[in-house]
Amino acid sequence: MNESIASEKKKLPSESKTTEREDLGITVHKQEDFSEWYTQVVLKAELADYAGAKGFIVLRPNGYDIWERIKEYFDSRIKKTGHRNAYFPTLIPESLLKRESEHFEGFVPEVFWVTRSGTEDLLDRYAVRPTSETIIHDSMSRWIRSWRDLPLLLNVWNSVLRAEIKSTKPFIRSTEFLWQEGHTAHSSEAGAEKEVMDILLVYRDVMQDLLAIPVYIGRKSEKEKFVGAVYTTTLEAMMPDGKAVQMGTSHHLGQNFSKPFEIRFLDKEGELRFVWQTSWGISWRIIGALIMEHGDDKGLVLPPKAAPIQIVIVPIIFSTGKAAEIESKCREIEGELNKAGLRTTFDSRENYTPGWKYNDWEMKGVPLRIEIGPRDLANGTAVLVRRDTGKKRTIVTSDIVRESSTVLEDIQSNLWTQASKRLDQQTVMVKSYGELREVMEEKGGFAKAAWCGSADCELKVKEETGADIRLLPFDEMPAPQSNCVVCGKPATEIAYFARAY
Amino acid sequence: MNESIASEKKKLPSESKTTEREDLGITVHKQEDFSEWYTQVVLKAELADYAGAKGFIVLRPNGYDIWERIKEYFDSRIKKTGHRNAYFPTLIPESLLKRESEHFEGFVPEVFWVTRSGTEDLLDRYAVRPTSETIIHDSMSRWIRSWRDLPLLLNVWNSVLRAEIKSTKPFIRSTEFLWQEGHTAHSSEAGAEKEVMDILLVYRDVMQDLLAIPVYIGRKSEKEKFVGAVYTTTLEAMMPDGKAVQMGTSHHLGQNFSKPFEIRFLDKEGELRFVWQTSWGISWRIIGALIMEHGDDKGLVLPPKAAPIQIVIVPIIFSTGKAAEIESKCREIEGELNKAGLRTTFDSRENYTPGWKYNDWEMKGVPLRIEIGPRDLANGTAVLVRRDTGKKRTIVTSDIVRESSTVLEDIQSNLWTQASKRLDQQTVMVKSYGELREVMEEKGGFAKAAWCGSADCELKVKEETGADIRLLPFDEMPAPQSNCVVCGKPATEIAYFARAY
Repeated sequence: MNESIASEKKKLPSESKTTEREDLGITVHKQEDFSEWYTQVVLKAELADYAGAKGFIVLRPNGYDIWERIKEYFDSRIKKTGHRNAYFPTLIPESLLKRESEHFEGFVPEVFWVTRSGTEDLLDRYAVRPTSETIIHDSMSRWIRSWRDLPLLLNVWNSVLRAEIKSTKPFIRSTEFLWQEGHTAHSSEAGAEKEVMDILLVYRDVMQDLLAIPVYIGRKSEKEKFVGAVYTTTLEAMMPDGKAVQMGTSHHLGQNFSKPFEIRFLDKEGELRFVWQTSWGISWRIIGALIMEHGDDKGLVLPPKAAPIQIVIVPIIFSTGKAAEIESKCREIEGELNKAGLRTTFDSRENYTPGWKYNDWEMKGVPLRIEIGPRDLANGTAVLVRRDTGKKRTIVTSDIVRESSTVLEDIQSNLWTQASKRLDQQTVMVKSYGELREVMEEKGGFAKAAWCGSADCELKVKEETGADIRLLPFDEMPAPQSNCVVCGKPATEIAYFARAY
Repeated sequence: MNESIASEKKKLPSESKTTEREDLGITVHKQEDFSEWYTQVVLKAELADYAGAKGFIVLRPNGYDIWERIKEYFDSRIKKTGHRNAYFPTLIPESLLKRESEHFEGFVPEVFWVTRSGTEDLLDRYAVRPTSETIIHDSMSRWIRSWRDLPLLLNVWNSVLRAEIKSTKPFIRSTEFLWQEGHTAHSSEAGAEKEVMDILLVYRDVMQDLLAIPVYIGRKSEKEKFVGAVYTTTLEAMMPDGKAVQMGTSHHLGQNFSKPFEIRFLDKEGELRFVWQTSWGISWRIIGALIMEHGDDKGLVLPPKAAPIQIVIVPIIFSTGKAAEIESKCREIEGELNKAGLRTTFDSRENYTPGWKYNDWEMKGVPLRIEIGPRDLANGTAVLVRRDTGKKRTIVTSDIVRESSTVLEDIQSNLWTQASKRLDQQTVMVKSYGELREVMEEKGGFAKAAWCGSADCELKVKEETGADIRLLPFDEMPAPQSNCVVCGKPATEIAYFARAY
């Protein structure tokens, strides 16, 4: 019996792809049709679905669980530095939204307007929240009186809506998205600027430490900054298809909002002064990047730290003989692993073969699978199968907590290493406009170039190659006497150009 | 020095009320002006604030933290029974909302309509989510194929909007409110009905076990049920002012939605059948009830299980002599208590006197205060002060974890006992319509009465006394041969009448 099970085990994973799951597996290769591959992973791993309303998506439980992991990670980090969560209204009166005019103009084309309440027309129409600066600053103007009230460090987990004219791409581009928006007020400009950078570095940890996605950080150009900000800092990742994803932004608002919203405080000397402010956000878009970054032809691949389920235990039961004993062993191990803090689930579903289950959990990206069959039961062993490399290893079950921990750590670090290597390969320094165009036309990625700082050159690159300036790094300067790759005038900055989602 | 501190300690709590905090404390008595008292607690404990948009409120961090406690409690309970969280769009196309017509008619007067996107008119206008049955059922119709997909147990944490014509009362009545809405689909009516009741009992635990608010459970009358439901079950609490609060509802939807939304599944015999459904929700309204139920003239009183901060440690420092040692002792105890799982914070703020801090934390409802001064330091003691009774007790610090645990448990049970006694006192069986009117006119509360089941009698009571039927209990029947207190015809039910928020 053991023999036949061993051969079953070998055959199942490949067989099942062409038999049991024809319509369930991914039908294209990631390398060949990236866009279709992405959509299939999103839908077939049941992360999200298109909604009954055009341009909107539904976040399904598998996707929601990942979002919760991200929330917990970020939330616990910012709570340690005194930030607190709150909730502000979904609807913002037009009169409030208009108070900071540049910001208002920037959002007008994307705003959904509520004009009727029940059967009556509204006098002051409402915007469905495109972002909450205005309504939060309105509250801050009532809450802040003295230096004792500062810094005021608020965060909100909510959704925002922006009418999208382009087609929907789940997580990456949809009319509504879940995000967090932080809004802070400080007594000094230095305090606000420190906050902008502190948060940017927490965001970097979310991306790199939790999601294993390497990012570059830097400033946005004037053209690309948040409307209403003095300056915007950003985190940018590079996808396998050569397009960048903006992973999050942290804005220095200066006194651009505190003046129109009259947010003032009495300083220690008794003088009335305007506060300095920041705002910052990351959205479920980073789940989109996570899928693109690590996924493969079998579906989603989740880094263990971000995985709602880190380990799945699949029993290998072909006859009823040992079924009860195997199941009981699986439950015992499940309990042991969970007790050790490893998020483990036992797949006890009947009516599904082990092979079907392998594919199902591979599709969902669970980092580690543990298989236990009759032979394992007899030998006191279990088989560990890594999602990232597919490698199998038989271990003794008395070591299972330590072995599983080690493998999970190794998967996290392997995904990080692979992603970092790719980012290196996808980042090139270009010396001429010709090279820049070539990079964009051929394989995409980041092209680093010396730039004169002019918006005309930036626009020319956008029009001719489709690439934006994704960021201006904090710590890289053009070589002395180097010239802008676009116009040839003296360069003042290094710019990272890329096409982007 | 010890002497003077001891006397300081005695004086501070009462003194400070009339000196330092004139504008900070509650200025009315709960017994005398309940409504004004409530508003002051909400605003001064910084639980919520009125928003820049009329009818809307802002949930401030102190309120949000309580909501988070409720979320965690409920979420962990329903996850154990296989429910999973998801997120669905804020905007619902009118065409979807209309598909179940009774439900639609019920919500029309309260719906906010989005008619414009950017600068363009929309053809199919959007409702800003008043509840999500329709958009979720639309998705369910695509997700459910066979009996294997059932039960489908979804939950959503979001906000809903209902245009309110009456005045705003934070938590109790506002245009937008945070809530959770559960939506489930089952293969049998029995499965759906069991779900309705299972959830109702989890809700009861939220109210009673977590919030220490006793509730009655039962069915709503036809007139009061959720539009679109076959029947609605409810939890009702009684406030000190004699008005009831509906704490949550759990609805049996039958096939009222599955038919128009065509949610069908192949059963084990291969037959295509419509699913049976439920929906259920609790909102931040229960925070309003929490405030009313337990609060006193000093402000909020939180049951320890629901308190984001269970213990606050206040150092008694009047000279700089022992300041460092006291602070270090406080931090040590803070660490010890937190390690033991008691949510503790050390109030190290400078520039505030101990008395000011006492009042501040009393206002915020923290269940237990620990005071540590120079004498305590010398004696190895600490003073525990209960928020519910105000009683002080000196203990040795080596016992502090055990003593604090015991006191917190006792506070939870004391609040429960007090509230239960009051509910008993506020529930009376009435034998005649005259008695019913008298109860409603005099002190309010629940009037239990035999009822014939007719909507006419229900309406007459509403019109003449302002009282609704809050619930029809599951387990109480009218005495044989008893008659309806309104019309005198034979009674078929016991009804709980009350005026309500």
